[in-house]
Amino acid sequence: MAKAKLPDGKVMEVPDGASVKDVAAKIGPRLADAAVAAKVDDRLVDLATPLAGEHEVRIVTPKDPEALEILRHTTTHVMAQAVRRLFGDQVQYTIGPALTEDFQYGFYYDFDFPDGVRVTEGDLERIEAEMQRIVDAKLPLARKVESTESAKRELLDEHHQRYKDEMIEDLVRGEGVKEVSLYRQGEFLDMCRGPHLPDTGKIPAFKLLATAGAYWRGDEHNKQLTRIYGTAFFSRKELEEHLARIEEAKRRDHRKLGKELEIFAFDDEVGPGLPLWLPAGGVIIEELERLAKQVEAEAGYLRVRTPHVTKEDLFIRSGHLPYYAESMYPPMELEGVKYYVKPMNCPFHHKIFSSRTRSYRDLPIRLAEYGACYRYEKSGELTGLLRVRSMQMNDAHIYCAEDQFEDEFIAVVRMYERYFKLFGIEKFVMRFSTHAKAALGKKYVDNERLWLKTEDMVRRTLIGNNVPYVEVADEAAFYGPKIDVQIWSAVGREFTLATNQVDFAVPGRFNLVFVNRNNEEETPLCIHRAPLSTHERMIGFLIEHYAGNFPAWLAPEQARLVPITDAQNEYAEKVRAQLAAAGVRASVDTSSERMNAKIRKAQKMKIPYMLVVGAKEADAGTVSVRERAAGDVGAMKAGEFVAKIADEIATRALHSTLAPAKVS
Amino acid sequence: MAKAKLPDGKVMEVPDGASVKDVAAKIGPRLADAAVAAKVDDRLVDLATPLAGEHEVRIVTPKDPEALEILRHTTTHVMAQAVRRLFGDQVQYTIGPALTEDFQYGFYYDFDFPDGVRVTEGDLERIEAEMQRIVDAKLPLARKVESTESAKRELLDEHHQRYKDEMIEDLVRGEGVKEVSLYRQGEFLDMCRGPHLPDTGKIPAFKLLATAGAYWRGDEHNKQLTRIYGTAFFSRKELEEHLARIEEAKRRDHRKLGKELEIFAFDDEVGPGLPLWLPAGGVIIEELERLAKQVEAEAGYLRVRTPHVTKEDLFIRSGHLPYYAESMYPPMELEGVKYYVKPMNCPFHHKIFSSRTRSYRDLPIRLAEYGACYRYEKSGELTGLLRVRSMQMNDAHIYCAEDQFEDEFIAVVRMYERYFKLFGIEKFVMRFSTHAKAALGKKYVDNERLWLKTEDMVRRTLIGNNVPYVEVADEAAFYGPKIDVQIWSAVGREFTLATNQVDFAVPGRFNLVFVNRNNEEETPLCIHRAPLSTHERMIGFLIEHYAGNFPAWLAPEQARLVPITDAQNEYAEKVRAQLAAAGVRASVDTSSERMNAKIRKAQKMKIPYMLVVGAKEADAGTVSVRERAAGDVGAMKAGEFVAKIADEIATRALHSTLAPAKVS
Repeated sequence: MAKAKLPDGKVMEVPDGASVKDVAAKIGPRLADAAVAAKVDDRLVDLATPLAGEHEVRIVTPKDPEALEILRHTTTHVMAQAVRRLFGDQVQYTIGPALTEDFQYGFYYDFDFPDGVRVTEGDLERIEAEMQRIVDAKLPLARKVESTESAKRELLDEHHQRYKDEMIEDLVRGEGVKEVSLYRQGEFLDMCRGPHLPDTGKIPAFKLLATAGAYWRGDEHNKQLTRIYGTAFFSRKELEEHLARIEEAKRRDHRKLGKELEIFAFDDEVGPGLPLWLPAGGVIIEELERLAKQVEAEAGYLRVRTPHVTKEDLFIRSGHLPYYAESMYPPMELEGVKYYVKPMNCPFHHKIFSSRTRSYRDLPIRLAEYGACYRYEKSGELTGLLRVRSMQMNDAHIYCAEDQFEDEFIAVVRMYERYFKLFGIEKFVMRFSTHAKAALGKKYVDNERLWLKTEDMVRRTLIGNNVPYVEVADEAAFYGPKIDVQIWSAVGREFTLATNQVDFAVPGRFNLVFVNRNNEEETPLCIHRAPLSTHERMIGFLIEHYAGNFPAWLAPEQARLVPITDAQNEYAEKVRAQLAAAGVRASVDTSSERMNAKIRKAQKMKIPYMLVVGAKEADAGTVSVRERAAGDVGAMKAGEFVAKIADEIATRALHSTLAPAKVS
Repeated sequence: MAKAKLPDGKVMEVPDGASVKDVAAKIGPRLADAAVAAKVDDRLVDLATPLAGEHEVRIVTPKDPEALEILRHTTTHVMAQAVRRLFGDQVQYTIGPALTEDFQYGFYYDFDFPDGVRVTEGDLERIEAEMQRIVDAKLPLARKVESTESAKRELLDEHHQRYKDEMIEDLVRGEGVKEVSLYRQGEFLDMCRGPHLPDTGKIPAFKLLATAGAYWRGDEHNKQLTRIYGTAFFSRKELEEHLARIEEAKRRDHRKLGKELEIFAFDDEVGPGLPLWLPAGGVIIEELERLAKQVEAEAGYLRVRTPHVTKEDLFIRSGHLPYYAESMYPPMELEGVKYYVKPMNCPFHHKIFSSRTRSYRDLPIRLAEYGACYRYEKSGELTGLLRVRSMQMNDAHIYCAEDQFEDEFIAVVRMYERYFKLFGIEKFVMRFSTHAKAALGKKYVDNERLWLKTEDMVRRTLIGNNVPYVEVADEAAFYGPKIDVQIWSAVGREFTLATNQVDFAVPGRFNLVFVNRNNEEETPLCIHRAPLSTHERMIGFLIEHYAGNFPAWLAPEQARLVPITDAQNEYAEKVRAQLAAAGVRASVDTSSERMNAKIRKAQKMKIPYMLVVGAKEADAGTVSVRERAAGDVGAMKAGEFVAKIADEIATRALHSTLAPAKVS
């Protein structure tokens, strides 16, 4: 008999060779029906997996976190089967993973279609219909394990899959495998680690979403394949909610809104990835900088300015050459000397630190600068404001002694949290990236002892201060461990906002020292930080987060005066002047359009407040206030409105203080 | 008889061949004695010049504006004579002009010394002594006119002057001259247009100031010569005042003060002409930007931000390539496309103008940006902050219709005047640079009609609004006339602050248009303006203008708390926090030094206010205020001081409001 130790601690005996599905059935028929797969000890397996000996067994149902990936993985096999049915057995299916972290997509499969066959988004409905037939047929998915030779033969001879050949070869060479598992449903066979749903009928709701080009193995020198994206859920309701969320995100796309709200523009003659910030964007930038300068001044930062062009020597000293060279622009030669535009501000701040002698009494020294940096990104990888070639960064470097590290580091985390609260960001995680031993001296400065020590210091600080974080290996900066800050927008889209880095290497390369209490020279630690990220990324995020409905303090135009007839233009102008005197950005719509058209125009520009003024208001010295989301919120004395909006702006309120409730 | 028409309208008859000196003598012996030269019709001539026929004659005395140049010109001949006496007749004297506009120097002469002879500043006293002997000998300066051939022979054969040969050749080729004038005093002969003083005894006061290297004809491929600088005045008193002014200016040199006050630094690894702004400089920059943003917001400017790197295409369209190419950094190539760091912001602002359609109702549009620009200057020409390779410019571009030009242009001039008043700049001139017909299509856009029209528009506006200006030909920008603003610092040193430019050419190249009242497309004019110049030049000027004693609002540190003993550190910290809450930049000197040393330290950093706090002050809640120039100005309640300094800062007062009188 085999023994299954269940999550509640009970041990169930089943005959040797019984499947985990049998275990589920023995627990209860409803569980067996809901079962998707099972976890045996630490391994996720198919329900058909036979048991022998004693194991911990947990039945995985749609409620478990592992279930979604299995569902989507099976769905991508079903899609490949449908595609092959529709486009012939010479279609090559290459790689088709499930995605669970992507905001939009749940899976994809990359296909190589025979010459002359082109599959586009117009074909998706047809493929979905064929998939539905496969689902309705409830085809069981059967796993078998074969030698690599026999698997290759079967996939190639019977199913014409030439890419799988190469993939198996890689597994043999790279991991030394001798056997691989194959999954079959109906006439369709694929090499796959699994696990999978027991049959295709277990897919309750799916949708194909898009097609795209993708190079084989992501290498632009290889053949371009056709990728088909889709998603799947355990209920139609969840699928529909997801599709609505995607639609909402598209509506909020910062590229679309950025254009409509005239925040930024790209221009062919200026070049890709080099945004022009229009006046509305200029306002947002100025407000963000005012915020940063205020917060940083209170926190004891000193502001500096450094040039954007520098001699090669500086980047050789810092190690950016060669460690960071491929992200840098090429050099310019002046009088036989190479100059670079800067990809980072740190080396300049190090130079300012070393411009005079420093004592332990001067530490910590916090140097801040909204510095512009330039990084080379392939033009194909540029996307709106999120991947650009020039960026203005909320940068600062904190030089401190080791015993000051924890306080300084936590103060930085607290500053992040303060900003998150201000912007209404409710979900965030610190992604703590460490080095990889194998890449020391290549990707990373070659000093394992300092890596381990600094990483430990960061880890202890994060844990000791209850900061939510995940740890990932081999993604550090070249000079030290890195903390990427991941945040989620109001509609749940994830953004990587900014990074903190702990630099134990470069201060030494710059001979940065301070005279410590023992009158000895000591090298400081350096914390790199940028809580407000770059203007580009931050504003890209904020546009989507707010769907363009910026809180009043950030709104390019804060109030629009709408005179009902020309007779009120003068009164409207008087109120505008009052607003301007209180520092409120407002304008008067003196166009010849009718009131409703004026309101629509203001609404389209997402101006927080519209102040309608007719003869009645002009006589009474009032304004009729419309809040952009709540609509009419009644009339009040002009002076009262000025005071209220000025206060809303001064306190950087997240929501309207005039509308009856939060609406956004 | 010859007739001399005198300035008072009288006509004097003298025998044909009588000299202008004879005319002077006939008017009065005192005038004859004071006479330096004469103006005959429109020509400045020697006193010995004979008269024939009828001419307007005015005797030039030291009081006339032309006199100083003649004095200095003669003095430079005397210097060359002394140098030749001391260092032998193989010394080559090349070019020796008088200077009247230079702040420091009144003349120079460039010498080529024989091999092995090196003349340095240590030799100046000896040369001065020899010059004095020549002055005391009262050698007459005699002019003679000779054929170029005979002049060359005489200079070469008798005086060994090989450079003069080349200079005469140039005159023959370039200007087609056949005769040249030579001047002789004693054994010394030089080719010179004159005029000169009648004899060397007429030089009342002179001083040699410096030596420097200078290439023959300013071309680095030629031989390096030795330049000797000096100056001369009509009285010892004027000379001494001038020397004192130079000393004061040296004391105020922004390179020296910038280092002492830790405002900026240069670093070899960053590169020449690329200043690092230290925290004290960062404060000044922030204050200037706050000022500019406030003034520009009130004046209806919109702020934008544009990238610092751009595709070559943009500068081809703007005409910077090729017109401005030699002042630009070389290109960087990305994916086969050339990119440049920007030397100017204008093309980007033009792109923002054209990012949407514009109506006459939208005009004028004023786009402002503190943009960083990069210009190539030879490393030998870089000086402190005044000639740099990267600059942050108080830039803006005003797009307007023709009938708006005068209002907009004058508003810019008034903004300049407002700033001048704020900074205590009492003397300024607008230097109006126009095109040169000969350089149309080369240095200047080839459209004479528009040049003349725009220049006329500017000229009329300057005259009509009583703006002080001088007009100079052939110094315009390539796209239109230029107004350089020249200002004088508190010690009378001249600075070229900034430029306004009227651009009639580039808007057309960018297809900038607005829809006018007649519903037709019309090209706007563009005014380029930068009243606060670049941070580099402005702060360089302000350091010298204030001798580092910045008004409180600009001072990096505004108040320093000086506890008499450690017992008052806590009270001092309380006052500092009060100051900080009122936005005042203050610190507490908690070092173990004695009070006087602490005050000396603060004084050296030119901190406007030192607040001494002992036991008495701590008990009474007062501070004993020392103003940096006036010294002790008495004790007052801490809160009263905070209110007073906060007001002095908020109003950007030029002088201390706490000290009894203006002292700086």
